[in-house]
Amino acid sequence: MSIFVKIYFLNIMTPAALRKQIRLKKSFLCVGLDTDVTKIPKHLLDLKDPIFEFNKQIIDATHPYAVAYKPNMAFYEAQGLKGWLSLQKTIDYLNNNYPAIFSIADAKRGDIGNTSSQYAKAFFDVLNFDALTIAPYMGRDSVEPFLAFKDKISILLALTSNAGGADFQNLKVGEEALYENVIKKALTYKNSDNLMFVVGATRPEYLKKIRTLIPNHFLLVPGVGAQGGTVANVCKNACNKNGDVLINSSRGIIYASSGTDFAEKAGEKAKALQSEMSKFIQ
Amino acid sequence: MSIFVKIYFLNIMTPAALRKQIRLKKSFLCVGLDTDVTKIPKHLLDLKDPIFEFNKQIIDATHPYAVAYKPNMAFYEAQGLKGWLSLQKTIDYLNNNYPAIFSIADAKRGDIGNTSSQYAKAFFDVLNFDALTIAPYMGRDSVEPFLAFKDKISILLALTSNAGGADFQNLKVGEEALYENVIKKALTYKNSDNLMFVVGATRPEYLKKIRTLIPNHFLLVPGVGAQGGTVANVCKNACNKNGDVLINSSRGIIYASSGTDFAEKAGEKAKALQSEMSKFIQ
Repeated sequence: MSIFVKIYFLNIMTPAALRKQIRLKKSFLCVGLDTDVTKIPKHLLDLKDPIFEFNKQIIDATHPYAVAYKPNMAFYEAQGLKGWLSLQKTIDYLNNNYPAIFSIADAKRGDIGNTSSQYAKAFFDVLNFDALTIAPYMGRDSVEPFLAFKDKISILLALTSNAGGADFQNLKVGEEALYENVIKKALTYKNSDNLMFVVGATRPEYLKKIRTLIPNHFLLVPGVGAQGGTVANVCKNACNKNGDVLINSSRGIIYASSGTDFAEKAGEKAKALQSEMSKFIQ
Repeated sequence: MSIFVKIYFLNIMTPAALRKQIRLKKSFLCVGLDTDVTKIPKHLLDLKDPIFEFNKQIIDATHPYAVAYKPNMAFYEAQGLKGWLSLQKTIDYLNNNYPAIFSIADAKRGDIGNTSSQYAKAFFDVLNFDALTIAPYMGRDSVEPFLAFKDKISILLALTSNAGGADFQNLKVGEEALYENVIKKALTYKNSDNLMFVVGATRPEYLKKIRTLIPNHFLLVPGVGAQGGTVANVCKNACNKNGDVLINSSRGIIYASSGTDFAEKAGEKAKALQSEMSKFIQ
């Protein structure tokens, strides 16, 4: 097998490939790269690209324990053009050095069809992320352009971990909550096999219920750590027979220390989370 | 008054300042800069930055008839780093040459609080847009960080012009549709004076109803032209006593011609729309 073909295969992160990585590393861990230039260690600020340098060191220290990374677009956009460059370098670094790790652009995009197609092109083709978070409010023709991308995953907001999530997501639509309606309808969209769903960990009572609605798709679960959810609650309530969850931690890992040992401390935090997770992975 | 102070005042586009421009130009026109590199005239492709050059010429030809421009982020992001540069040059060109024109970043952003704050920083502070479109699904604490920006406007999706909009926006929540609930709840958010609302023109029967819910805020109305809405329907149904609508046209104006006369033809289309609008402006 040529090197080219090998790299090509490694870069397709299907749900099956992701499950394999989860079993291999005994980890559901997704590390959120919410890299805020005002929060990273001061000694990095003299470097040419402090955000990329921070991400690179965090990735190098945490990758044995993580199956996914999730850069949060807002933090890169807030730095303007140079932030976009840091983002591009980060995803290139991930793809070139850790091609078996699942990469998620946390962007919460969604618009009319021709616009969603452009967003899909931006994150799937140009930046070459494996996955993208998307928002449901504009419905079928705003979601399907993302699902049309073969070998890419679109992660739809269902029930989010913030307090305001209840404003609309928990409203009753007939007998069910809006978030349930979003999930059921999304499963009828074309190429819905390419979906995962965002479900907040801060509402463990909902995790089991949501898993019955979505028995076969991955759930991306934020809200562990800084937002109050626990790994055990997520694993007990959100896993299906394959596992099929990604548990995200951002601030709890990447800002574990503000000193020159930030990467080492991040690695320790990631290892501790992985160790908890491993109890729930055969 | 020093030049500095003058520019400073001109750059604050409050709703009152926008109303003044609308009366001055007798126009509600917002030109959508959905600039697709595969659709712009071929003779521009040899230039260093075809997207910016296209936008610049479109703006120069249409500005007498337009009170707002709305670059659609997806089309810039789809070009990667150089697209972000084209966007930055476009907003700088607008702010430097036409500071009394209202600039909208069509981005449909929205996330948990600290992330929304970063998006707000990106579009309001770094790029210096007057306004940003945002999505409601994550509720109060995803919206209020945008509204906290003094002298900036956040334009919340209420009822969109695409077919899929009906998937969720028209679901009944008790006696009312979800989009009505979104509007009513958003009006209770802190600094709700800084809101405008997106309401699609393709549903004229809803425009009047929505105006009764939101008597005092601007409505941004897409869907005129390519998507089937008409200027007369919007003006008759969506205006309040001050007018307070922005009517967007994107493809109908910017792709009026694919030849070297593209800017001239765009100007003619913009003028024709402005002429229709002028009948409804005192």
